[in-house]
Amino acid sequence: MSVRAGIVVTGTEVLTGRVQDRNGPWLADRLLELGVELAHITICGDRPADIEAQLRFLAGEGVDLIVTSGGLGPTADDMTVATVARFCGRDLVLDAALEDTIADILKKMIGRSKPIGAVDFEAVMAANRKQAMVPAGAEILGPVGTAPGVVVPGSAGRSEATGGLGTPAVVVLPGPPRELQPMWDKAVKTATVQEAIAGRTEYAQDTIRMFGLPESGLADTLRHGEDRIADFDRLEITTCLRRGELEIVTRYEPDAAPVYAELVELLRERHGEQLFSEDGSLVDDQVAGLLAGRTIATAESCTAGMVAARLTDRPGSSDYVAGGVVSYSNDAKMKLLGVDPQLLAAHGAVSEPVAEAMAAGALQRFGADTAVAITGIAGPGGGSAEKPVGTVCFSVQLADGPTLTRTLLMPGSRSDVRERSTTVAMHLLRRILSSPGDRG
Amino acid sequence: MSVRAGIVVTGTEVLTGRVQDRNGPWLADRLLELGVELAHITICGDRPADIEAQLRFLAGEGVDLIVTSGGLGPTADDMTVATVARFCGRDLVLDAALEDTIADILKKMIGRSKPIGAVDFEAVMAANRKQAMVPAGAEILGPVGTAPGVVVPGSAGRSEATGGLGTPAVVVLPGPPRELQPMWDKAVKTATVQEAIAGRTEYAQDTIRMFGLPESGLADTLRHGEDRIADFDRLEITTCLRRGELEIVTRYEPDAAPVYAELVELLRERHGEQLFSEDGSLVDDQVAGLLAGRTIATAESCTAGMVAARLTDRPGSSDYVAGGVVSYSNDAKMKLLGVDPQLLAAHGAVSEPVAEAMAAGALQRFGADTAVAITGIAGPGGGSAEKPVGTVCFSVQLADGPTLTRTLLMPGSRSDVRERSTTVAMHLLRRILSSPGDRG
Repeated sequence: MSVRAGIVVTGTEVLTGRVQDRNGPWLADRLLELGVELAHITICGDRPADIEAQLRFLAGEGVDLIVTSGGLGPTADDMTVATVARFCGRDLVLDAALEDTIADILKKMIGRSKPIGAVDFEAVMAANRKQAMVPAGAEILGPVGTAPGVVVPGSAGRSEATGGLGTPAVVVLPGPPRELQPMWDKAVKTATVQEAIAGRTEYAQDTIRMFGLPESGLADTLRHGEDRIADFDRLEITTCLRRGELEIVTRYEPDAAPVYAELVELLRERHGEQLFSEDGSLVDDQVAGLLAGRTIATAESCTAGMVAARLTDRPGSSDYVAGGVVSYSNDAKMKLLGVDPQLLAAHGAVSEPVAEAMAAGALQRFGADTAVAITGIAGPGGGSAEKPVGTVCFSVQLADGPTLTRTLLMPGSRSDVRERSTTVAMHLLRRILSSPGDRG
Repeated sequence: MSVRAGIVVTGTEVLTGRVQDRNGPWLADRLLELGVELAHITICGDRPADIEAQLRFLAGEGVDLIVTSGGLGPTADDMTVATVARFCGRDLVLDAALEDTIADILKKMIGRSKPIGAVDFEAVMAANRKQAMVPAGAEILGPVGTAPGVVVPGSAGRSEATGGLGTPAVVVLPGPPRELQPMWDKAVKTATVQEAIAGRTEYAQDTIRMFGLPESGLADTLRHGEDRIADFDRLEITTCLRRGELEIVTRYEPDAAPVYAELVELLRERHGEQLFSEDGSLVDDQVAGLLAGRTIATAESCTAGMVAARLTDRPGSSDYVAGGVVSYSNDAKMKLLGVDPQLLAAHGAVSEPVAEAMAAGALQRFGADTAVAITGIAGPGGGSAEKPVGTVCFSVQLADGPTLTRTLLMPGSRSDVRERSTTVAMHLLRRILSSPGDRG
């Protein structure tokens, strides 16, 4: 038996795309970890009728649990709690203890903030009283900001809204991710949620990553797997291609682990060269690990700092990142990286010799032992018959060892070329650092 | 009378959050521009039953138009067209001309790619034949990749799936944004879509941007507007705070333009200092315009290339971006930017004197006339009582004029601090470039 859930994301700013929803994907991950199957995410604006329609839809689809995000603020357009209460056939009641808690929070906030104008505490409290109104019988999730969440138990045939069909358990959470996330952890521990998800199947999930394999090559291998591996259909495999990286996520019941092991074996056999991660680790994790004890410098033209920014994404990267040069102009390539003007004249800025000279310059100027250089044509202008838009030259060098230089033709828009080039640079670094004895 | 639409996003990788959906927000913008009201976005995996449930839900909510994205590939789990056909009560029929078109595309693709293995063209074509199966009576949108889209006319009471309620017009588009976007433009021009959206109200929409105003300050002004401006409720205002920038989007019927003009006047009056855009232009657009005829260099520590990457986001930026230095280590600050070691010793790397020396170094090393420097503590480590995590020093300088130096304390995580610092740098550049006579 499997347990299904739905997520209702509310907020006009999310529906209209002005704010990217982060709660749906985050909750999707959490549900997956729990072994709950997510069936639908629905997004609507702040209109109660639309919110209620989505709740009704999910109840009609037979989900066991609904999680909502957003619409818990003090203003009039925040209507989620009242809408959920009506949907569940429950009255809204004032929780006096909760009202006191919110008053305390507001007092502290007002005390801390600079006086912008005269703050009428009573008016603020009146506006916030609605946040202390909760559906009868609901469990309260104490506020992280000022908005409390609620967990409303499911009921059989209680609600008129579902035509007497019964309502699933509903967890009502605030919109800001930093409030929603800790509150979800509390919600999961409630008896209501535990009961709703009691029948779940626990799945194992594993992620494999490849680089440089076209999706069709993988599809072919998976067809092969269907023929060769018994019980192959016990693996639920989803694949996704992003910037040249292929992510293969497999979900399976724990006793199908031997089937998964056979799949991994097959992938190793056929795509050993492209397979770089069997444990879900990102190329960023691997490069960070490989750089321990080393120092790296970057020399970037078309990516203009994106590789440096990516290398320093993670805490502690100052241990191994010395810095970099964005040498957008030829002048900068010469002055800051010491690239020979004759090299630029002979081969052009986008060429392997210039990429190598940039990497060598980065090694030398920063006193680093590892360098990566990128020079290319991101477009839309600047291409030629010989060097079309998307032509990008890479060079990675170790001070004490090999150099790996490559020219690739990247598809897509200016931003696609820049982003994909950044990823290629990470993979070339991974390659040279993991087998520094190889020559490219 | 208003026209309502719904968007159905399909794909397990989107539902589970492994890929961020870019189509929902993009289509939301396009619908808004057309004057069509978006009521719901729903996301589900690749299961036909879930897709059909969402279509039924939207039809039940009375939308006039449904747009789907995803599920048009050649593989067995791509089921959107067949599901839409069934939902609309139409048979799937093979379109011979479309089959030929797809065959031509595939021949070219196979011809171009390196032979990975033996490609059995007939097998590929068989797998792709399903992409030439379209609902009877649908208009075909020619493929951008290999997947064609379709536009299925609405019908009254034709479909059993809606219990004889009738189906709205459905536009079926592929998942990859670069295929979906040009195809949507074609879809809008079809008679089916034009008919479906014929009753729409055309709205005007304007965007104002502010920087440095807290949301509560704006809320106060809007309350004031309600009292002071007649017909204020004819403006549909949504506000959104992102990385210190406040975006105020207002939708109104064209004859309410004078009401909107009063709002703009009020905002200018009360927040003239913070208001930087009345035409929706981004700070990036403004800085790019202000940099025409100049050359800029960057010197970045904690943002490590993010400002350089952002300045070079747009085509043609090589006209004014000379380059930059990512001076992550103190050594790099000294060697590459000429920062005096005594300055570092006396004030520390995160200090206004060092930020100023970095900017001066960037001006000099790149021969630029404009420079921006950033040095700060992005965290999570490295903070102290005197300089907590989030402390960031900025200096923007014009070779021929003033210097503007600021220290700010940024809230949030490491990536929040880095991203917000990048935005602050853009605003400081805008300020110094738009009134170079001012001294900070």
